[in-house]
Amino acid sequence: MEEKVRIETDFLGEKKIPKDAYYGIQTLRASENFDITHTSLSLFPTFIKSLAKVKKACALTNYELGDLNDMQRDAIIQACNEIIDGKFHDQFIVDPIQGGAGTSTNMNANEVIANRALEILKKPRSSYDIVHPNNHVNMSQSTNDVYPTAIKITLYELIYKLKDSLRYLRDSFNEKAVEFKDVLKMGRTQLQDAVPMTLGQEFKTYAVMIDDDIFRLRDCQTLLKEVNLGATAIGTGINTKKAYRKKVINNLRDVTGIDYESASNLIEATQDTGDFVHISGILKRVAIKISKICNDLRLLSSGPRAGLNEINLPKMQPGSSIMPGKVNPVIPEVVNQVAYEVIGADTTIALACEGGQLQLNVFEPLVAYKLFTSINMMRRSFYTLAEKCVKGITANEEVCMNNILNSVTLVTCLNPILGYEKSSALAKEALATNKRVYDIILEQELFTKEELDELLHPKNMVNNYDDI
Amino acid sequence: MEEKVRIETDFLGEKKIPKDAYYGIQTLRASENFDITHTSLSLFPTFIKSLAKVKKACALTNYELGDLNDMQRDAIIQACNEIIDGKFHDQFIVDPIQGGAGTSTNMNANEVIANRALEILKKPRSSYDIVHPNNHVNMSQSTNDVYPTAIKITLYELIYKLKDSLRYLRDSFNEKAVEFKDVLKMGRTQLQDAVPMTLGQEFKTYAVMIDDDIFRLRDCQTLLKEVNLGATAIGTGINTKKAYRKKVINNLRDVTGIDYESASNLIEATQDTGDFVHISGILKRVAIKISKICNDLRLLSSGPRAGLNEINLPKMQPGSSIMPGKVNPVIPEVVNQVAYEVIGADTTIALACEGGQLQLNVFEPLVAYKLFTSINMMRRSFYTLAEKCVKGITANEEVCMNNILNSVTLVTCLNPILGYEKSSALAKEALATNKRVYDIILEQELFTKEELDELLHPKNMVNNYDDI
Amino acid sequence: MEEKVRIETDFLGEKKIPKDAYYGIQTLRASENFDITHTSLSLFPTFIKSLAKVKKACALTNYELGDLNDMQRDAIIQACNEIIDGKFHDQFIVDPIQGGAGTSTNMNANEVIANRALEILKKPRSSYDIVHPNNHVNMSQSTNDVYPTAIKITLYELIYKLKDSLRYLRDSFNEKAVEFKDVLKMGRTQLQDAVPMTLGQEFKTYAVMIDDDIFRLRDCQTLLKEVNLGATAIGTGINTKKAYRKKVINNLRDVTGIDYESASNLIEATQDTGDFVHISGILKRVAIKISKICNDLRLLSSGPRAGLNEINLPKMQPGSSIMPGKVNPVIPEVVNQVAYEVIGADTTIALACEGGQLQLNVFEPLVAYKLFTSINMMRRSFYTLAEKCVKGITANEEVCMNNILNSVTLVTCLNPILGYEKSSALAKEALATNKRVYDIILEQELFTKEELDELLHPKNMVNNYDDI
Amino acid sequence: MEEKVRIETDFLGEKKIPKDAYYGIQTLRASENFDITHTSLSLFPTFIKSLAKVKKACALTNYELGDLNDMQRDAIIQACNEIIDGKFHDQFIVDPIQGGAGTSTNMNANEVIANRALEILKKPRSSYDIVHPNNHVNMSQSTNDVYPTAIKITLYELIYKLKDSLRYLRDSFNEKAVEFKDVLKMGRTQLQDAVPMTLGQEFKTYAVMIDDDIFRLRDCQTLLKEVNLGATAIGTGINTKKAYRKKVINNLRDVTGIDYESASNLIEATQDTGDFVHISGILKRVAIKISKICNDLRLLSSGPRAGLNEINLPKMQPGSSIMPGKVNPVIPEVVNQVAYEVIGADTTIALACEGGQLQLNVFEPLVAYKLFTSINMMRRSFYTLAEKCVKGITANEEVCMNNILNSVTLVTCLNPILGYEKSSALAKEALATNKRVYDIILEQELFTKEELDELLHPKNMVNNYDDI
Repeated sequence: MEEKVRIETDFLGEKKIPKDAYYGIQTLRASENFDITHTSLSLFPTFIKSLAKVKKACALTNYELGDLNDMQRDAIIQACNEIIDGKFHDQFIVDPIQGGAGTSTNMNANEVIANRALEILKKPRSSYDIVHPNNHVNMSQSTNDVYPTAIKITLYELIYKLKDSLRYLRDSFNEKAVEFKDVLKMGRTQLQDAVPMTLGQEFKTYAVMIDDDIFRLRDCQTLLKEVNLGATAIGTGINTKKAYRKKVINNLRDVTGIDYESASNLIEATQDTGDFVHISGILKRVAIKISKICNDLRLLSSGPRAGLNEINLPKMQPGSSIMPGKVNPVIPEVVNQVAYEVIGADTTIALACEGGQLQLNVFEPLVAYKLFTSINMMRRSFYTLAEKCVKGITANEEVCMNNILNSVTLVTCLNPILGYEKSSALAKEALATNKRVYDIILEQELFTKEELDELLHPKNMVNNYDDI
Repeated sequence: MEEKVRIETDFLGEKKIPKDAYYGIQTLRASENFDITHTSLSLFPTFIKSLAKVKKACALTNYELGDLNDMQRDAIIQACNEIIDGKFHDQFIVDPIQGGAGTSTNMNANEVIANRALEILKKPRSSYDIVHPNNHVNMSQSTNDVYPTAIKITLYELIYKLKDSLRYLRDSFNEKAVEFKDVLKMGRTQLQDAVPMTLGQEFKTYAVMIDDDIFRLRDCQTLLKEVNLGATAIGTGINTKKAYRKKVINNLRDVTGIDYESASNLIEATQDTGDFVHISGILKRVAIKISKICNDLRLLSSGPRAGLNEINLPKMQPGSSIMPGKVNPVIPEVVNQVAYEVIGADTTIALACEGGQLQLNVFEPLVAYKLFTSINMMRRSFYTLAEKCVKGITANEEVCMNNILNSVTLVTCLNPILGYEKSSALAKEALATNKRVYDIILEQELFTKEELDELLHPKNMVNNYDDI
Repeated sequence: MEEKVRIETDFLGEKKIPKDAYYGIQTLRASENFDITHTSLSLFPTFIKSLAKVKKACALTNYELGDLNDMQRDAIIQACNEIIDGKFHDQFIVDPIQGGAGTSTNMNANEVIANRALEILKKPRSSYDIVHPNNHVNMSQSTNDVYPTAIKITLYELIYKLKDSLRYLRDSFNEKAVEFKDVLKMGRTQLQDAVPMTLGQEFKTYAVMIDDDIFRLRDCQTLLKEVNLGATAIGTGINTKKAYRKKVINNLRDVTGIDYESASNLIEATQDTGDFVHISGILKRVAIKISKICNDLRLLSSGPRAGLNEINLPKMQPGSSIMPGKVNPVIPEVVNQVAYEVIGADTTIALACEGGQLQLNVFEPLVAYKLFTSINMMRRSFYTLAEKCVKGITANEEVCMNNILNSVTLVTCLNPILGYEKSSALAKEALATNKRVYDIILEQELFTKEELDELLHPKNMVNNYDDI
Repeated sequence: MEEKVRIETDFLGEKKIPKDAYYGIQTLRASENFDITHTSLSLFPTFIKSLAKVKKACALTNYELGDLNDMQRDAIIQACNEIIDGKFHDQFIVDPIQGGAGTSTNMNANEVIANRALEILKKPRSSYDIVHPNNHVNMSQSTNDVYPTAIKITLYELIYKLKDSLRYLRDSFNEKAVEFKDVLKMGRTQLQDAVPMTLGQEFKTYAVMIDDDIFRLRDCQTLLKEVNLGATAIGTGINTKKAYRKKVINNLRDVTGIDYESASNLIEATQDTGDFVHISGILKRVAIKISKICNDLRLLSSGPRAGLNEINLPKMQPGSSIMPGKVNPVIPEVVNQVAYEVIGADTTIALACEGGQLQLNVFEPLVAYKLFTSINMMRRSFYTLAEKCVKGITANEEVCMNNILNSVTLVTCLNPILGYEKSSALAKEALATNKRVYDIILEQELFTKEELDELLHPKNMVNNYDDI
């Protein structure tokens, strides 16, 4: 009977590897050691591709420096290209949450690339004298520079896509801002009636908020361009040639098309996780604001009969297993939950980053896992929010207008003429008698009807400056 | 000219102490080293008293074991009693947030007690050969057992008072539950109209929630009764006599009137902060629920014209510097903020407790500071909420009833008779035509008016079981 | 060509369902609406089984009350039993993070059970006049009582298993406590040398900590026994018969074998999430303590040459892609990360629970998702920690003993004889001269060699009380 | 007998005010309503001054627009100037944590300024027909634009000072980097021996980290320059003249000397708290990094005999009440606690900002309180860390060098020559035999002594690139 396994050895002993597997002994050990999430790295294809890009840039550099031969170079590069094209991702079997600061992930990449390179060279798996995971694929590298560099490249790409989703969401609010520009309604502060505005202004606000967040995300992408490739173990560049650092960054730029730079102090860059905390903080900012918007949408659409009922969200699914006809704001509700997830992830990341010690932060795998997951969930939920909710929102104009006509705080606009005390007295009387302010003012003959119609016309209140 | 200072010496050198100060050199060093909060221990009188109670129990024990003479015993006990009576608290000058795991707090107590004891004995300050802060006041003790024991005693008392404030708040909700027992209104799920209930049921719910929290607080007080007094430095009891451990707990019970017990494993009890994490979690539970209640109160009282307007909160202050007559729900708003503060404190405590290493958690001063502050703020705010808000709430019965009459989800009660699909169709038609469900059913002659009046009577819907 | 789909209709319109799918239109809508985690409910088999148990208890009750016929009863019960046996879990396709407070999960269960029941009855899918997802499977129920009840049942079982993993871990520490009971070493406070202890005491401490946590988990399981089944939409029990509430709890007890009870106030129980916050707090307590233990293990095994090096962790995998022979404490490292994940989840849960409004908390799906995930990750990681780390730990006895012999704080035990000042002076001299305290004391002829050997013998210091 | 009080009235009734108080009825109501922190606004002098600056800019603008007369203008301006000079701060008696979105703080300022202006005009207190808190001091303003603007001005100044403290701390690390530039030591990853570096590089890293944070703080100050003054109640600018918005910003620039700008969309700027979340995130970033540095300092100075003992921190105070001669790293310990406080505050701020609704975030008082407190505590603790710890650090050069000589991972530098497997075998043998790697290599005659001395010389390993 044919053997289904091959044997590999490391300094801890030997292990049986599935014969056709591209990964090797260290990957297998890691997959046995870490069974935490019941998932694998293949959840994050962008990350696997980023690892391959880094490996490719390193191989190109090692070749230029004369440390890989043509055959090795060509095989390694081809293997990397195939991974960048989406192949062999099922061979990345280690759990994304792992001990060892990412060594298992790095070795998984090294072993897959080495064995695929061997296959390309028509050599059997594990012929590591020809292409070795450590000596050739990982040449001039350490997990401690490869891993954070690949994380940064991944985050750069994921944030790029996240911005796209935010732009799509922003545009959906902008469309509604135009559609609702003439719908007059009461503004509210502290859930209490304040002064008039338009529903268009309310939706425009959401678009502006999101736009601002896009800028903040763009800013923080800059932090991601500084990588520590070349640092090797602790930032001193041990096991690299002096020319390596500069060359490898140039190659990384070529491979990725993004203008990455070498961190100014590689020792600092190898141990510091400030940028990840920073980015998590910006993601939290985005999450909090979107959550606030969803809270507002749920509030404004509350009812239909016993709520504010100023807007209608599109009906996405029956809302109750028991109450017929009930429809709930399920889309904003799910987006709120994504926001809470992102906010909690920020706490996790804070602990992981605070816990780093001396020359390395060993908890980077968790940091990467949380950041990748947060961004992916946000991106998906933002498209969902735009597509399945915002675009279908309609206004209940009559409800909105009645709220203004009945309002007591309309007297605010009389403040400059009557003063705060007299205006307060009018408001108080309106509340006590359940009358409209308008009618009381006429009864008291404070203004003529014509004057009052001009003074109290909501359209005159909703925009004191032309440019809002 | 008379000297205003006296000199004290420790193994780091000598310092000038204000002549009349009861504290000594170590307190002074600490107050110079730690200027973080710009406050002092005197913020927490219960804590200072607890320290004195522990010191008193220890002195009684050391006397019983023959290690203090009558004169020392009497003077130390009297000094402790005076502190328990609220005297000399201004001598506790160290910052509550401090390095050193509480040593500065312990030494502040040791020095104040020693110098007050010397004064009682008509000896000059600093005559430490007679009563020494370390050798006599701190005899058989370490910061590492005294300090956490005093924290637990303090928490026990503070939680006792916190429960009082919760009972007061619960009673205020119970009063309203009775007052509003016949006010029919729409229940809401997901901010959408659901099925009828009474406003009394709504307020009763808050009382039940709080009652439950009182039980949970009582449970966690039990954890506080286990103290590590006798553990000294790391839990091995070094520098104590074998009989000390049992005797000191008995004395602590006598001094405090509470049945404290010796932790079963003193090494564990000296380094573990699980109980503090636990208590912080329970405080967070309370905070989250009260915050939810405040959110509800703000929502139900929203308006007055463009909101739900089902209840009125008492008017506590003008609500706006610009909008005359506006009154805001300022009391629930401030309680929400206290809740957020408590939730944030829980994160701080998590970090402090996770950061403990080996035989001691050095961050206990921060843990104590946050727990004490959280409880004090909660207690004050709960009385405020009861007194300045809940007790004065009134109902807008007409608004509440109209919401029911207009409701579409009233059809829920027809489900068992008509089935989910037919009921859904009725709901849909009511929404589309803006008619009342009641009228549509009569038009379609699904039931006679008499049948329908019985079926749709809200009173029949609000309590299917007799005991709620 | 044969049709691959069937058509179902709800009040929002009609949808094509895969012909053989057991789920129906509402499940399909939900799976289209929510694509957040890229996973499905089938991640949580215990939860799916719990849902089926609740449905079974309800069907039994409805039959007893005469509202289901024999055929319906038998088919529904059989379908539930099959799900409880692990079948059809692939039909639970909705995302665990969803809007709608769990309605999609509940309807997914209702639809799968209905269609499987129809199949058992040899009827085509969607013949809902015979067995209807809402009218029959969901009879006398609402998502708002079924869903939280199933969550509680799930948590009860998951915590049961979590305690097993903790017991296993505790036992592994207890074994080491025995093995290391005679290994003398320095205790440390604030990372500074303190007084002697045994390595056995150090490991015993961890066992005691964990034991305490097991008790706390047991306590909080009690909270899970109180369920709101029978509450229906908002707790008023609308659409149930008066006898239903009591009967359904009895049936739930029979089905699960656990003594569940009906919450005393169903309206409160339907909207309150205090128990979930509470349990999350206890999980956080466990996480923080285990994380502290892992920090200690990493610290004590630091080195091998430039660290504390008191213990050796088993070598699980090569530690570096660049540094040959390096082995890292990967198992404690991954457990730390699980702890940080749990702590972050607690923040997420706090936000979700605080955000509940009025008669329902709409964010329960997120709360359940986080609690289930936290417990699963903890359980797996605790077995890993015991099996792949603790059990293989060995002691470096010589290193441990040398630390004591060189120690300066040994003078602590002379405190009661020489006083704090004289002892401090000895310590200071030892540090300044780099001598051993033992030698200095002999030089100064403070004690005879015999006296000193007795006084300074570490064995006399490590346990002042017999029972620790 | 002379009256000690005066009477003021608002639309809720009348109150007795202490006769000489500058504050008025609304301040008094607020101080009675909110007793949460037991402190007052006077804790934050920079904030009080910022409020006065805003009021001054508004008064100048109202005068330019013809809405205040010369007398009112001069008196209001003088009153504001006096507050900016530090006077009357004791009149700001409201609790910083308050309901009402800051209205009480704004009215406290309005009333103090009005009454001081009246005093300047030799009029009795409360003669509000002459200078009115609302009609004149608050003219063209709302709490909702004044309050967040004053918060931003305060944050700008506080962060300016925070950067100073960071620069001071950075410089203290840089000095040590130079002092320790030739001290060779083992670098550590995952607490395990890695490869050599210098102690100077280790301290330089901390300086670089801090420098980076200073840049990030500078970046986020930019966000603070955009203010919503002119927005009034909800951002529509109601109750202002069209020319007001532009003029008031110009005046604010003149008054503060900082180039503030008008937010592009005032409705958005009035409700959005994204910038506060953002800044809190940056503060958290700073806190986490400083905390990591303090963790390292405590670890590197652990011992003195049973720890790493590579550096000595200055001795600030006796470390134990029981262990003579013990000195603890109290300064890093207290800074860690400040960091945990800041991280917890970030959670609080997240909740407060997420909870904002519609046109205003009512929880801004809490947000401001937490941000101000965090920054103040950080600033004080950073100076403390530099002055009382970093500047006095000394190195134990011999300990550091011995760690290298004994190290096993020295073989890393042989990797490129011998390959990963052979190097691993050498490392394994060194560990097993407890020999030095150096000696084994010579025994095996892998290199000559001369070659080996060159290859293994630590100086050749600590900096592969010239510029680090």
